[in-house]
Amino acid sequence: MKKVAVILSGCGFKDGGEIYEATLTLLALDEADVSYQCFAPDMPQMHVINHLTGEEMPESRNVLVEAARLARGNVKPITEAKIEDFDALIIPGGFGAAKNLCNFAVKGSDMTVQADVLAFAQGMSQAAKPVGLVCIAPSMAPKIGGVGTQYTIGNDAGTAAAINAMGGVHVDCAVDECVIDSERKIVTTPAYMYAARIREARAGIQKLVQAVLNLA
Amino acid sequence: MKKVAVILSGCGFKDGGEIYEATLTLLALDEADVSYQCFAPDMPQMHVINHLTGEEMPESRNVLVEAARLARGNVKPITEAKIEDFDALIIPGGFGAAKNLCNFAVKGSDMTVQADVLAFAQGMSQAAKPVGLVCIAPSMAPKIGGVGTQYTIGNDAGTAAAINAMGGVHVDCAVDECVIDSERKIVTTPAYMYAARIREARAGIQKLVQAVLNLA
Repeated sequence: MKKVAVILSGCGFKDGGEIYEATLTLLALDEADVSYQCFAPDMPQMHVINHLTGEEMPESRNVLVEAARLARGNVKPITEAKIEDFDALIIPGGFGAAKNLCNFAVKGSDMTVQADVLAFAQGMSQAAKPVGLVCIAPSMAPKIGGVGTQYTIGNDAGTAAAINAMGGVHVDCAVDECVIDSERKIVTTPAYMYAARIREARAGIQKLVQAVLNLA
Repeated sequence: MKKVAVILSGCGFKDGGEIYEATLTLLALDEADVSYQCFAPDMPQMHVINHLTGEEMPESRNVLVEAARLARGNVKPITEAKIEDFDALIIPGGFGAAKNLCNFAVKGSDMTVQADVLAFAQGMSQAAKPVGLVCIAPSMAPKIGGVGTQYTIGNDAGTAAAINAMGGVHVDCAVDECVIDSERKIVTTPAYMYAARIREARAGIQKLVQAVLNLA
C-alpha cells in the first residue's frame, strides 16, 4: 500500500490550513486505498484571524496543535517526517500555507520556506517522489521542484508573476483540473484560489491525488 | 432549488464540530445541487481542548467564531435562522454537538438543548421538515422529534440507553448506512461514533443527505 505524507498549516483558511481542501485530500487518498500521515511544524501561527469578521484576534495559536483539529489528532511534528517512509507528499492550501509553511503572503517572491518543511519537501522531490500542491501552496513550487517547474495558481496573474519571478512557469488551469509537471513530478490544482463551490474543489483535488499516485 | 440549514457547534471534534462530518455534509448537499446556510450559537464553547494531547487549554473560544473557520466565514447566528426559509435541517456531530448545542456530554439523559437551537430544530420538525442528525447529534433526537423517535448512535449501548431514557428508540446501524424515521422525518447516521476511516463517514453521510432531501 502506498503511503502519502500530508503537511498541514493550521486549521482555518485565513490563518491556517484550508479545511475543505485538507479534508477532500484525505478523502481522495482513502478512496484510493492509500494510507496517509499528517505533519505540521511545531511553531506559533503567524497570527490568528476571526473568520467571522476577518479581524486579527489578540491571541496566539500553535500550527501543530491547530492542525491536530483538522487531522482528528493524527498529526506529527514535521521534524519526524522521513523521506524513506513515504511515496509522495501533498500540501493543501489555505493562507496558512503562505503564512506558516512559507512567508509568501508577506514577502512575495523574496519568500523563504520554513526550514523543516523545505528540507522534507525538497528531499522528497530530489528522491523523485511526486509532490502535490493545492491552492496557494504552489507558491512553494519553484523552491521544491526547482527553476522551470510548471505549476498553476489558477488564473491570478499577479500571484503567478510573483511565483514566476522565483523560477516557476505558470500554466492557467480550470478550477476542476490540475497541472502535471511530469518531469519534476510536481502536481498543482487551484481549488479555493477560485473555487465557487465545494464540489469544484473536490473535482480538482481528486484529479491531483490521482496524478500524484500515478507518478509515485 | 431546495435550501438546507446546517447547524455547526465549533471547529474540531473534541470541543466543537466534527470537521470531516461537516465538510462531507456540505459536499453532499452541493453535489445534490442544494443550497445551504450554516448557523451556530453565538456563545462561548464549553471548553477548549488541545487536539494533540487531549488536555484542556486555558483559553476561551466562541462557538460562532470557530464555526466560521469550518464554514469559510459563511455562518450566521442561529437566532437569525427562520423556519420558512428552509426545507430541511442537518446537524453534524463532534463533541461540540453534545457540549455546546446541548449538554448531553455532561448531563446525559437529564440534558437540555441550547434554547435557540431547540426552538429552530423543533420548529422545523413541527413544520414537517426533515432533520438529519450525525454522530452524537442524535442525542437530541427525542427532544426534536418527540417520544418514540427512531434514531441510531451506531452500536454504543451505553449512549443509546441514555438517549432511550429520554424517549428515543435506538436502532443499530452500520457505519456506512443511516436510519430513517419516515413518520417523524428524522434521519441519523453514526459517522465518527465509530468510523475507522473517512470514506466510511462519507458513505453514511451521503445516504443521510439523500434521505433528508427525499423527505423534504
